[in-house]
Amino acid sequence: MPALDYPPPLQRLIAQIKSLPGLGPRSAERLVLWLLQDGGRVEPLMDALSDLVARVHACDECGFFIEKGEDCSLCHNPKRQQKIICVVEQAADVLRLERSGAFHGLYHVLGGKLSPLDNITPEDLRIESLLERVKVLQAEEVILAVGSDVEGEATASYLNDLLRSAGLTVSRLAQGMPAGGGLDHVDELTLYQALQGRRSV
Amino acid sequence: MPALDYPPPLQRLIAQIKSLPGLGPRSAERLVLWLLQDGGRVEPLMDALSDLVARVHACDECGFFIEKGEDCSLCHNPKRQQKIICVVEQAADVLRLERSGAFHGLYHVLGGKLSPLDNITPEDLRIESLLERVKVLQAEEVILAVGSDVEGEATASYLNDLLRSAGLTVSRLAQGMPAGGGLDHVDELTLYQALQGRRSV
Repeated sequence: MPALDYPPPLQRLIAQIKSLPGLGPRSAERLVLWLLQDGGRVEPLMDALSDLVARVHACDECGFFIEKGEDCSLCHNPKRQQKIICVVEQAADVLRLERSGAFHGLYHVLGGKLSPLDNITPEDLRIESLLERVKVLQAEEVILAVGSDVEGEATASYLNDLLRSAGLTVSRLAQGMPAGGGLDHVDELTLYQALQGRRSV
Repeated sequence: MPALDYPPPLQRLIAQIKSLPGLGPRSAERLVLWLLQDGGRVEPLMDALSDLVARVHACDECGFFIEKGEDCSLCHNPKRQQKIICVVEQAADVLRLERSGAFHGLYHVLGGKLSPLDNITPEDLRIESLLERVKVLQAEEVILAVGSDVEGEATASYLNDLLRSAGLTVSRLAQGMPAGGGLDHVDELTLYQALQGRRSV
């Protein structure tokens, strides 16, 4: 007799959940079995998913998520500085920076970072619209708040070349010691950069 | 101004995904943002979920999953031994035992284990239908293939009391050394049980 397996619809859902970021085959199986355990666990999830598709999209300007039919509270807020744009990789980075309370200008979500190995080229990122916005807003400074990994550095360097020629200030986030940590908790490169970037007190 | 956050439909989905087993707030957020990144990632997931609800349910007899309208390939297979029932906690355990190739009888999925702390009492498990099946099938042996954690032991002990009075053989899985592992890879309790259960060769 053929080896026993789950019914095909269940196998398909496990395969699909397995392909989501952060989930492996075992956690996908456990999750799907949990969904099946009581009848009423799948419908609320489906409702929330369809609600998401129907009501949320990315703002054409900054790329952060907004409800359809509503104005972006970031782009259309006259209290925010209109001449300084902070470029981030992901929408989640906008929230992180907002929570820090240190920035009151406009954001621009790239939607990723340059990564030739993953086939992510400048055309895949929201770079065209960044250049457009810089022109329209007559921006004075662009802060490249991208990661300091290899892809982040490459992205920052690429954007710097493009933006410098437009004649505005381009800056990056400071690198150094994280808040509240001792020297025993940081790696050598971070320590090197913290030394290089030391400030007189 | 109020603190920036994701639009409500997005927040709701994150909250829902966060409540799934094995997912925390950070992985839920990352997962939902990933779903939003390209337009077409949510629909296939919704299709697979609705397919699951529409086409899969638990077999009334063994509790394993079957496609609606189809016979259970475990319960309605004359080649399987009909007088021996293996009791497991979850449907996934059926697959694990089948893959081992060591059992050719019938299964019975309890749907959990007794756990007073989680408010799981005998009424929440498929115990009534187990006793019914034991009678109908005139079973000769019931193997309690539940876990050896506290709740598993309690469940086995509870079922043993019920079944012994019905006058049939009740057995449990052997405990001892896992296959292919040395003494340095097992804990003391496992070693104790392996010694207690030693067999002459």
